[in-house]
Amino acid sequence: MFNQEGIFNLYMGNLLDQVHTPADIKSFSIPQLEQLAQEIRERLILALSKTGGHLGPNLGVVELTLAMHYVFDTPTDKFVFDVSHQAYVHKLLTGRRERFETIRQPGGLNGFMLRTESEHDAYGAGHAGTALSAALGMAAARDLAGGKENIVALAGDAAFTNGITFEALNNISEHTKRLIVVLNDNEWSIDRNVGAIATYLHKIVTNQHVTHLHDSAARLLHKLGGKTAINVVRRAEEAAKGMLWPSVFFEEFGLTYYGPLDGHNIGLLIETFKFLKQQDKPVLLHAITQKGRGFQPALDKQKKFHGLGPYHPETGETNPTGQKTYSEIFADTLVKLANENDKIVAITGAMPNGTALDLFRPHHPAKYFDVGIAEEHAVIFAAGMATRGYKPFCAIYSTFLQRAFDPIVHDVCLQNLPVVFCMDRGGLSGDDGATHHGLFDISYLRSIPNIIHMVPKDEDELADMLYTAMLHDGPAAVRYPRGTGPGTAVKAHPAALPIGKAEVIRDGEEIAILGLGALLPMADELAHRLEAEGISAAVINPRFVKPLDRDLLASYAQRVSAFVTFEDHVLMGGFGSAVLEALSEMNFTVPVVRIGWPDHFVEHGKVEQLRAKNGISVEAALEKLEPYLKASKGRRLVAH
Amino acid sequence: MFNQEGIFNLYMGNLLDQVHTPADIKSFSIPQLEQLAQEIRERLILALSKTGGHLGPNLGVVELTLAMHYVFDTPTDKFVFDVSHQAYVHKLLTGRRERFETIRQPGGLNGFMLRTESEHDAYGAGHAGTALSAALGMAAARDLAGGKENIVALAGDAAFTNGITFEALNNISEHTKRLIVVLNDNEWSIDRNVGAIATYLHKIVTNQHVTHLHDSAARLLHKLGGKTAINVVRRAEEAAKGMLWPSVFFEEFGLTYYGPLDGHNIGLLIETFKFLKQQDKPVLLHAITQKGRGFQPALDKQKKFHGLGPYHPETGETNPTGQKTYSEIFADTLVKLANENDKIVAITGAMPNGTALDLFRPHHPAKYFDVGIAEEHAVIFAAGMATRGYKPFCAIYSTFLQRAFDPIVHDVCLQNLPVVFCMDRGGLSGDDGATHHGLFDISYLRSIPNIIHMVPKDEDELADMLYTAMLHDGPAAVRYPRGTGPGTAVKAHPAALPIGKAEVIRDGEEIAILGLGALLPMADELAHRLEAEGISAAVINPRFVKPLDRDLLASYAQRVSAFVTFEDHVLMGGFGSAVLEALSEMNFTVPVVRIGWPDHFVEHGKVEQLRAKNGISVEAALEKLEPYLKASKGRRLVAH
Repeated sequence: MFNQEGIFNLYMGNLLDQVHTPADIKSFSIPQLEQLAQEIRERLILALSKTGGHLGPNLGVVELTLAMHYVFDTPTDKFVFDVSHQAYVHKLLTGRRERFETIRQPGGLNGFMLRTESEHDAYGAGHAGTALSAALGMAAARDLAGGKENIVALAGDAAFTNGITFEALNNISEHTKRLIVVLNDNEWSIDRNVGAIATYLHKIVTNQHVTHLHDSAARLLHKLGGKTAINVVRRAEEAAKGMLWPSVFFEEFGLTYYGPLDGHNIGLLIETFKFLKQQDKPVLLHAITQKGRGFQPALDKQKKFHGLGPYHPETGETNPTGQKTYSEIFADTLVKLANENDKIVAITGAMPNGTALDLFRPHHPAKYFDVGIAEEHAVIFAAGMATRGYKPFCAIYSTFLQRAFDPIVHDVCLQNLPVVFCMDRGGLSGDDGATHHGLFDISYLRSIPNIIHMVPKDEDELADMLYTAMLHDGPAAVRYPRGTGPGTAVKAHPAALPIGKAEVIRDGEEIAILGLGALLPMADELAHRLEAEGISAAVINPRFVKPLDRDLLASYAQRVSAFVTFEDHVLMGGFGSAVLEALSEMNFTVPVVRIGWPDHFVEHGKVEQLRAKNGISVEAALEKLEPYLKASKGRRLVAH
Repeated sequence: MFNQEGIFNLYMGNLLDQVHTPADIKSFSIPQLEQLAQEIRERLILALSKTGGHLGPNLGVVELTLAMHYVFDTPTDKFVFDVSHQAYVHKLLTGRRERFETIRQPGGLNGFMLRTESEHDAYGAGHAGTALSAALGMAAARDLAGGKENIVALAGDAAFTNGITFEALNNISEHTKRLIVVLNDNEWSIDRNVGAIATYLHKIVTNQHVTHLHDSAARLLHKLGGKTAINVVRRAEEAAKGMLWPSVFFEEFGLTYYGPLDGHNIGLLIETFKFLKQQDKPVLLHAITQKGRGFQPALDKQKKFHGLGPYHPETGETNPTGQKTYSEIFADTLVKLANENDKIVAITGAMPNGTALDLFRPHHPAKYFDVGIAEEHAVIFAAGMATRGYKPFCAIYSTFLQRAFDPIVHDVCLQNLPVVFCMDRGGLSGDDGATHHGLFDISYLRSIPNIIHMVPKDEDELADMLYTAMLHDGPAAVRYPRGTGPGTAVKAHPAALPIGKAEVIRDGEEIAILGLGALLPMADELAHRLEAEGISAAVINPRFVKPLDRDLLASYAQRVSAFVTFEDHVLMGGFGSAVLEALSEMNFTVPVVRIGWPDHFVEHGKVEQLRAKNGISVEAALEKLEPYLKASKGRRLVAH
């Protein structure tokens, strides 16, 4: 399995074990660095086979990361990695090797760069497209302070489908004289990249003249080494470009373009970085890498190995999951609806796999639009289609839809256009951590007029809600969690739900418990606990965050001594807050015990553990309920 | 004043009065269209001298709009105008001429395109950068439906500093074969444009070879007319470009580039649009226009005449405002703080004039950053600077900061970086209308952990809050209204406010009234009204939306029979909602009467009128308070 010749390497791990800080690699020879790269790959493949994680992207940047740490000196120099899911190699080299097997595990290393985790992590990320902006900020700060440190931004080609990257590009030459941008080009974001820029980069890479030139350049460089050779290459390129292939794109943005370069040739990368370090101008290095390099299963299935759970370290096999995820139920339903309604179109922002829209695509290829990591455009594009009678379903993770907040307000809701937001990963995302938790969508959406906001209790209700959204002539959002639900069978054809009507799961007289979406079982459990104490509790599936079922709230408000709300969302501005508002507006002063995420960012970990730790539990609800029960009934419920 | 020779034109208005629908201009000759252009300019200058509005941008697009309506047929064909503040000429031509003097007036025409106002307004906007995305959505929809209509997006060069435009560009060639993009290049957004794209466009325009070529082309075209001539021009250009000036930028995005063209030459524009209409590929027409054309004061002072209040129709003079605006107080204070603290930097997104940062710039030129209409980049750039010890103050209107919601969450708050958001135009903006009201920032910001959110009662407190934000080691937001405040003198040096502490304006026993920011006087008036009835009312200036002063709330909750909150913000998720949450968490069930904007988009108009109409008033508060007062006191307060 391990080395290129297929022979088990007896020296495996020897060099990596010697690396405690990045300085330790600076004395290595090129062959040693190549061996180290091999060891790192083995370590990644083995470790992630147990923890899961972003295997493919990290296998692709082993040499790039080694060369960067060989030439630059973190933490003085600053590396900004776009998305930063490709920072595992960086973590291995910067004092986190011994804890590496804890990555994405509770209490362990984060799967992304994290400023609080290491001084070598200059900037954290989890959403794409931020690296150039952040790095430019650092460069401008350095220039103001008269510093000399190097700022290196590493961004995948997918980042160049995102508008922020262009906003940054537009400002680089005006706001600094010195910045190194590394374009890590593997032609993939998570799925294969889309759009004109991807085509452009592909043209550069596949242009035979350019390729030939660079092969010669690489050979020349290895022979001569150092700056002179690079200058020769550069001049030759310039001449060639003028004739063959005008690579003005990045140059018009004021970045001097170098490339394309083999991103797995450590010696070449080191010489190039040494050269770039000396430049007093913003530069862009176009490095070609292979996502999943060194692990055949990852090369064969790039999408699958972008980020995944545990797998077999030799075959790459993963445990088949029998039960369909919410994402898959969404896609199945959308196929079904689109079979009946030719106005349905589906839009994804570079996440056909994550949102399961890749299951929709073969059924309705003309109705499927992948716009790249471009959530704002996705939503405005959808609004444009909606003005022409189409019914766009935008499948975007709750956390990524934050990018499109203004288009949702300004383009969709203000114009009251029938766009449906299918918010996958609504709620805590677990091991991805704070950048990926979808904990804000209720608060950022429910203050916007015209939108309706639904949360299903199970798979079948998700289908019903998608159908209801389809029938609704206005903006609608449906939020569903990561992974699988309770496994409820989906009926043959979805049913339309009455807008703004909750579902009473069972009636009760003393306490009314509203369990939103995935937390309905917690509401149910609380009811059982209360009833065991002789307290009659109603269990309600709210279905609609907006519009709230005010009639139902009013009817219970006249009877019960308290409400309890459960939501997989922050408490501030969330579902429970909406219930408080509604009761207040109807002049009720019944107490509301709200259970949801507290006002701090939640780390990565297992969902169940994080819930318990943060008070998302039946116990916490009982404790908060106690004053009202004691006051009204003289009972003590919570056993401490 | 009126015509080019300075002679009063006796025929003024004759042609314009004949235009009831766009079809009416199709029979006009070129000289007639030129006269019509003149009449339209006169009409614009006169009308806006009374109403105020976006004079400069509209004077710049008179010929472009005429040529578009001459060649295309709205409402079948669709025009999407970026920002759409340049749609006045379009409104004059599409059945709204007689109501034109009502523009931006209560109940009158909106200052932007509005789908509900006319079937000719295919898409509304008020924020920049959306036109290409929306138009592409329409084009994709047309292609799916097998339609033949033309989609024309008109966007200023400023839109090309915005990332969404690039996200759209990246997708155009993949998602349609037919789309016309008109780049209206006047080198200005509101201030002169910044960044690499601006430089790039300027280079094209000022390139002598290109200019010469186009002059010849224009002459040729006028002689020959029609498609053939254009093809000749195009071929000549292609040859010229290959040698002289490789205009590959837009072409790499898959748009065939035509230009630069004189955007005031109606004949040339008409011929060109006729040609472009026949193309089966996405095209970009680069038209050069002059902002403020035909009105010397607007040419002399482009910034001022971008958008303004009433002015003298001959001299362009405006009434000097004696009192400083909140924006000016902000800028003065920031200069003061930056004199003492060399870590302060100021960032604007193309709004140095609107935010008054143009007053900061001369004092601290190296600390001033205008990043273009790029709010996301602005915030991430700020975050990058903050990681290096700087204290960035981002001055962005409340409504435009919606664009940066995700960077505020993901880059600033998650990393707990000390970036200060100076949210100008917080609250109802008045005559700009729904796209510009800043009514959501409390709900979209307060659910984010780590950020503090302040609202000053007057100018002096704004200074204190900026100082407090400077001292605070974490994210901070300060929200202040458009225009002037009560005129409170600003003390020599601002004072630090204790974080999370409200100010008791006067104490009271029965009702506690919280008046946030600009609505504090309303709270005060309510207190007087109550006291006239013998009800003791406390008046509180909350200062902090987050963290709330819970101790103060608790102390009043033990005494009063109700709270009242006033906020210039939507009720859903707003300040009153935060008060409800806090009281609920402390187990209080005191009623809270919340006064704020209801759950629908608010039209344009006068602030006072819109407040009264939407229940932001003392009367409304009294009415809502009545049940609690009646219950507890048996009094009747509201005289109906």
